[in-house]
Amino acid sequence: MYGYFNGSILPVEQIAFGVTDLGLLRGFGLFDYFRTYNGRPFQWDWYWERFANSAAKMHLPLPIQKEEAYGVVIELIGKSSLPDVAIRFVMTGGYSPDSISVVHPNLVMITEELHPMPHTQFEEGIKVILDDYVREMAEVKSTDYKRVILLAQAIRSARASDVLYQKNGEISELSRSNFFLFKGDRLITPNRNILHGITRRTVMHLAQNDFQVEERPVLLSELYDADEAFTTSSTKKVLPIVQIGDLTIGDGKPGKRTLFLLEEFNELVGNW
Amino acid sequence: MYGYFNGSILPVEQIAFGVTDLGLLRGFGLFDYFRTYNGRPFQWDWYWERFANSAAKMHLPLPIQKEEAYGVVIELIGKSSLPDVAIRFVMTGGYSPDSISVVHPNLVMITEELHPMPHTQFEEGIKVILDDYVREMAEVKSTDYKRVILLAQAIRSARASDVLYQKNGEISELSRSNFFLFKGDRLITPNRNILHGITRRTVMHLAQNDFQVEERPVLLSELYDADEAFTTSSTKKVLPIVQIGDLTIGDGKPGKRTLFLLEEFNELVGNW
Repeated sequence: MYGYFNGSILPVEQIAFGVTDLGLLRGFGLFDYFRTYNGRPFQWDWYWERFANSAAKMHLPLPIQKEEAYGVVIELIGKSSLPDVAIRFVMTGGYSPDSISVVHPNLVMITEELHPMPHTQFEEGIKVILDDYVREMAEVKSTDYKRVILLAQAIRSARASDVLYQKNGEISELSRSNFFLFKGDRLITPNRNILHGITRRTVMHLAQNDFQVEERPVLLSELYDADEAFTTSSTKKVLPIVQIGDLTIGDGKPGKRTLFLLEEFNELVGNW
Repeated sequence: MYGYFNGSILPVEQIAFGVTDLGLLRGFGLFDYFRTYNGRPFQWDWYWERFANSAAKMHLPLPIQKEEAYGVVIELIGKSSLPDVAIRFVMTGGYSPDSISVVHPNLVMITEELHPMPHTQFEEGIKVILDDYVREMAEVKSTDYKRVILLAQAIRSARASDVLYQKNGEISELSRSNFFLFKGDRLITPNRNILHGITRRTVMHLAQNDFQVEERPVLLSELYDADEAFTTSSTKKVLPIVQIGDLTIGDGKPGKRTLFLLEEFNELVGNW
């Protein structure tokens, strides 16, 4: 696999950050992550918009413009020998003379192998644990993922796959994906303290033909009368959630509306 | 300058982190920072204790034991050509096969040039701005310093030097240093939501002969009848604060008790 680092294209293994990088020293970094379908970047315009927005909110000037970045992405995809890949952008505050001041950002763009979710997860649905937490600057795709890494053992112990964050009784998101629930034909998803997922956006578009979509604050207590739940991300697509903490959702099996949306999503990406 | 990286000693410029490091990708890192006086590491035992504690709280096994680490530190100091240096430890979650799982931490230890505070700051005192914020996992010296980097422009605009964090009316700490205030001969410092500074600990020891030291929650409202204020860190030593937001502390000049503690501190480190 190849990557782009500050203007050069080189094998990913040769990309290296010096020790004064503010991403390393001060956690001052942001990223984005998307994938190709049929060799073409999925929802490129929306991903770029989000990446640029994250950069702006972290006061980092973009060292590359959209058209040029697209050219690099296409070149990197071409250099990979795989039919489909993931693409990761990482931008940090760059090398700092005093370990705190930003001078020039460092920007890396790499292709990665895809790690699709196991089929059984779509067939059986996943379990998640609850955590009392809300991400700082949730709307920015910063590199701050300490919380879920610290929860890895708790997730494993509970035989769960991920964590659903709630704070003061309000649900926000999973560690790296968005949250939806169905009550009858109403599709409900949190509107704040979240990273606005591109798969989330895609699914909301797909859903509006068949369901009433509500984007609003979602209370923890609403889980009790939810009929179905699922999570969305570029790797998880539309992944059914059948258990949240001790609570079984619906009858403990992936819901039919969820599976309908997964089918719609698969159809969309199949024709991308 | 030389550094240690996962068992090897090499020039700092040659130390490089690959792009799958969890410090870079996920902000999953911790560090510590201390200095020498008269060529000897200041308060080594306390710094090591804190570093080990940060690592434990981030569930990272220490890849090196205390005695070996001390040997490396002494070797690195010897390889520098300076009478005194700073030493920085940075430990991350290491290279990850899936961008989220921890396998082996990466540990770097480097020497850096000291950047002493300008004399005028000790003579005139500094101004700080207030910010409504509390650090996540404040007691862990994680690499999470997004907040102060984002505030850089606001600090400059206010002609201030730093930021004092408060949340719901309770003061915690400055961005990279601890906070103290004097009311008469009572020396007061926050006891929670803080990184427990080694200079803070040293100063509290020094102060107890002459002052009544109170370590407890400190309210923002207590600033109004404070006679003096100062901040402590390994680079700032005992640095007077004369203005906090719009509020002038005492008569707007470094307080006599603060300067007494600075003198005591300088005497201690002079004989280290």
